[in-house]
Amino acid sequence: MAKKKVTKETAESMARRQREISVSEFFLKNRHLLGFDSPRKAMMTAVKEAVDNSLDACEEAGILPEIAVELMQVADNRFLVTVQDNGPGIVRAQVPKVFAKLLYGSKFHRLRMSRGQQGIGISAAGMYGQLTTGSATVILTKTKNSPQAHRVAVQIDTRANKPAVLKDEAEDWQPEFPPENPEQEPVRYPHGTQVGIEMTAQYVRGRLSVDEYIKQCAVANPHLRIHFKVRLLKKDKGGEAVLEDSDWQTYSRAVDTLPRIPEAIRPHPHGVELGVLMQMLKDSRSRTLKGALQEDFSRVSSRVALEICEKAGLNPKANPTRVAHQEIEALFTAIQEIKLMRPPTDCLAPIGEGQILAGLKKEYPADFYTAVTRAPEVYRGNPFQIEVGVALTRPGQGNELAADEPVRVMRFANRAPLLYMSGACAMTEAMEHVNWKAYGLQQSKGGLPLGPVVFFLHIASVWVPFTSESKEAVAHYPEILKELTFALQEVGRQLSVFLSRRRRQAESDRKRSYIEKYIPHLALGLQEILTLSEKQKEKVEDDLVLMLERTHLEV
Amino acid sequence: MAKKKVTKETAESMARRQREISVSEFFLKNRHLLGFDSPRKAMMTAVKEAVDNSLDACEEAGILPEIAVELMQVADNRFLVTVQDNGPGIVRAQVPKVFAKLLYGSKFHRLRMSRGQQGIGISAAGMYGQLTTGSATVILTKTKNSPQAHRVAVQIDTRANKPAVLKDEAEDWQPEFPPENPEQEPVRYPHGTQVGIEMTAQYVRGRLSVDEYIKQCAVANPHLRIHFKVRLLKKDKGGEAVLEDSDWQTYSRAVDTLPRIPEAIRPHPHGVELGVLMQMLKDSRSRTLKGALQEDFSRVSSRVALEICEKAGLNPKANPTRVAHQEIEALFTAIQEIKLMRPPTDCLAPIGEGQILAGLKKEYPADFYTAVTRAPEVYRGNPFQIEVGVALTRPGQGNELAADEPVRVMRFANRAPLLYMSGACAMTEAMEHVNWKAYGLQQSKGGLPLGPVVFFLHIASVWVPFTSESKEAVAHYPEILKELTFALQEVGRQLSVFLSRRRRQAESDRKRSYIEKYIPHLALGLQEILTLSEKQKEKVEDDLVLMLERTHLEV
Repeated sequence: MAKKKVTKETAESMARRQREISVSEFFLKNRHLLGFDSPRKAMMTAVKEAVDNSLDACEEAGILPEIAVELMQVADNRFLVTVQDNGPGIVRAQVPKVFAKLLYGSKFHRLRMSRGQQGIGISAAGMYGQLTTGSATVILTKTKNSPQAHRVAVQIDTRANKPAVLKDEAEDWQPEFPPENPEQEPVRYPHGTQVGIEMTAQYVRGRLSVDEYIKQCAVANPHLRIHFKVRLLKKDKGGEAVLEDSDWQTYSRAVDTLPRIPEAIRPHPHGVELGVLMQMLKDSRSRTLKGALQEDFSRVSSRVALEICEKAGLNPKANPTRVAHQEIEALFTAIQEIKLMRPPTDCLAPIGEGQILAGLKKEYPADFYTAVTRAPEVYRGNPFQIEVGVALTRPGQGNELAADEPVRVMRFANRAPLLYMSGACAMTEAMEHVNWKAYGLQQSKGGLPLGPVVFFLHIASVWVPFTSESKEAVAHYPEILKELTFALQEVGRQLSVFLSRRRRQAESDRKRSYIEKYIPHLALGLQEILTLSEKQKEKVEDDLVLMLERTHLEV
Repeated sequence: MAKKKVTKETAESMARRQREISVSEFFLKNRHLLGFDSPRKAMMTAVKEAVDNSLDACEEAGILPEIAVELMQVADNRFLVTVQDNGPGIVRAQVPKVFAKLLYGSKFHRLRMSRGQQGIGISAAGMYGQLTTGSATVILTKTKNSPQAHRVAVQIDTRANKPAVLKDEAEDWQPEFPPENPEQEPVRYPHGTQVGIEMTAQYVRGRLSVDEYIKQCAVANPHLRIHFKVRLLKKDKGGEAVLEDSDWQTYSRAVDTLPRIPEAIRPHPHGVELGVLMQMLKDSRSRTLKGALQEDFSRVSSRVALEICEKAGLNPKANPTRVAHQEIEALFTAIQEIKLMRPPTDCLAPIGEGQILAGLKKEYPADFYTAVTRAPEVYRGNPFQIEVGVALTRPGQGNELAADEPVRVMRFANRAPLLYMSGACAMTEAMEHVNWKAYGLQQSKGGLPLGPVVFFLHIASVWVPFTSESKEAVAHYPEILKELTFALQEVGRQLSVFLSRRRRQAESDRKRSYIEKYIPHLALGLQEILTLSEKQKEKVEDDLVLMLERTHLEV
């Protein structure tokens, strides 16, 4: 075959090759950015995206969440991943776009704490399934008000980033969950959603597994009841492949109340960039500049709005959509110079110290627990809040934590566990930069502390800054690192008090047992010297023991 | 003010809030994913994206590239970044989309090595400028065939991810560059493009600076002439802010030939996933399945195509657009089982050992250089090729490299320097996992080796798997890590030979000078013992020196 000649391009020939890239095509080619790099991670990511959505939906609708996750092996390296919830259900018309269109959702455009924020996750999971197996995502969903459920099968038309509906049927269906007590009936709800995705996947237990994800989910969401089942293909005696079911593994609720529903907030003026300010004024429905400032932003009172306009030399009655470029720059500068109240924080719903402790106690038997919820802070105008919990376990007692290994760090963002990419996460950096030796833990330079300790780290924010679309690590904003450090130092101090008390106690016990051993001899000696009766000797012995007990703390 | 009640959502109320998120809105909110986290990094990223585009365009059009980068400070933390090239120019109709629409380009949909691949970079830089300063991106461009240039000012309508054209004028313009010799006329070209973006930015020299980026660019592109100028605001005597210009800093060409123009290839069957195979068959223009296999994929001959069809139990004459799901699965399985030639590699244009050495020699005076270009390999069906260069500099000789500090690692992907996120990069991991002690360099466990050594690492691929959209680190594919390790071990062995020869040489020199010192005394002693004449003594002395010289290597 003759070698083809490579032709040189011209401006005109290049122009003919220019074309639009759909966001689906982009992420299909870059699927590692979304957490679908390997079959093992892909399964975890798919479960995570579905569970995140279920929890968000339940909480927004005021429903105590119940979720069932099932992994069913259908071939060597292929699984059907099914996640079912008792959420409010999804209106039929929205189903295709929610599950088969990237960048579609209800959470991106508001400032409010939620697990999902990008409108990518679950559609990306479906797209991965479609890429690797050619199958469709199958959704069963029922809202309270609809008489029947809908069964919808969708795929993404990646060229257009649009859903293609392959099947759409009405069906009698209600979500059913295993009962707490096996003798009871299954639990049924009049509403809920089930999503099933077949994908190339690998099931491995361990630190980065679906098992671990679900366990951590239960720890961070004590109001959640979650069931988990794995069905693996095994060869039977005749060499036939058969499904071997595990029992349902259920994590019960530790509390029966929902977290407070966080409120959506308007942007804080100090977090708004010039370009965004321009866009907001252009879009404003207010008739005056003053009104726009007051209504479209948080923490701007009528007085403050006037003050800003005055400082910028602008007419408060100007039409906000017609303010000139130069004038908006003046407005922007004026805003930076004006003191404002911090952003409201009812957009955040931290887990709370009590619930963190409840979650930790349920899963990690330990000698000492503590938890800290810091006051909200702000990065780039976004409120956020840091929480830290600690459990000091006993090595070898029902957990795999060792005294001479790095501590276990569980990371959470808006109550969702983060398993992968810990090295890239601000939480890990904060852990490594605290001087743990000062708090009684061993630590090699720049590393995690050592010991049988579980750390629970949580960031709640209206916009968690992740380092990639797969939402596995928190970016290193200085404000976030600072708050993490403060929180870790606070639990460190409490841990240190416990550890040194325990050390003193152990020391005291050691001395005490030493003295106790000699009390009978001492009494015998006294008996001889003072010629005491047997009764007197016994009294002396008892007195000595009592004395020892009383002086216990000072020993 | 009464506290607002947070209302519980229903399936219906949630449905009303669902909406599409434009890719621009998404990246605007997540601008750290694109490399625009801080004002300092933003400037580097903007320059990088513009220079990448210029180099790609020049090379595709067969033009020896000449580029000028100017950073002009316009306010405290604001710069106008201008990049100008002598490329083929851009056809007027394409200008708005190329510069103000994310995910638009000519490189995404083909398999061929180029710096740009995503169709995001330069529009993202413009979007960042717009966000932080409200300004437009201004483009001046002229193609060879158009009589005049176009001056176009564009912004992104982020809601729709569409360009908004603010200005569009014809103008007499030709790109002009500083001459090599200041007494000559400026260099003019009949075609080229200039792009100017005003942005919040910070100019800092050092390891992560625009300066460093341009220097590394010159090293990896010895066919590039690039000029660089910084204009900073200074206060004059009267306290007025005036611009202080640096001179143009010019990196000359080391070679006057363009790299070979790489060819675009068709996908290799072994790298194609099931979902992609389905899409490709659906889109095929061939009338038969056999034809589709042969024409749409690389390395599938007529014989191989028949073999695949036979193995899958399919009719080679079937219409490829109508093959059923099950049948495509059979086809997919058959493809995996068939032996195929590796993908063609003329889609890659490695820098080459000679040019790597030329680039290193130009910028790093050193005692020892070596370079290795490995044979192409494949990850997930994508051909790639690893190159490594090494320069062993003398500490303190015109460079800042110290003997007891980690070596300097320059990373490149398709000839573009990677400055940030080295910790997340497969290249860094490979550097740290090679046992450098075996090659004569010091190394602490799991760290970079120490020494005044510059490493030049390059991956050339039709699709470099970056860890984020900002293209700063290469993902950890095992195939890539393996090739990197082999290449590093190869240069390590050469370095080791040089280092031990130098060590032996130094040892020998030391001994030699020691003996030399004693030769006159020895000759004097011999003269006395053997009663030699002065002449004989001098002869003995000369003989001894000669003998020492002859035995030099064995000393």
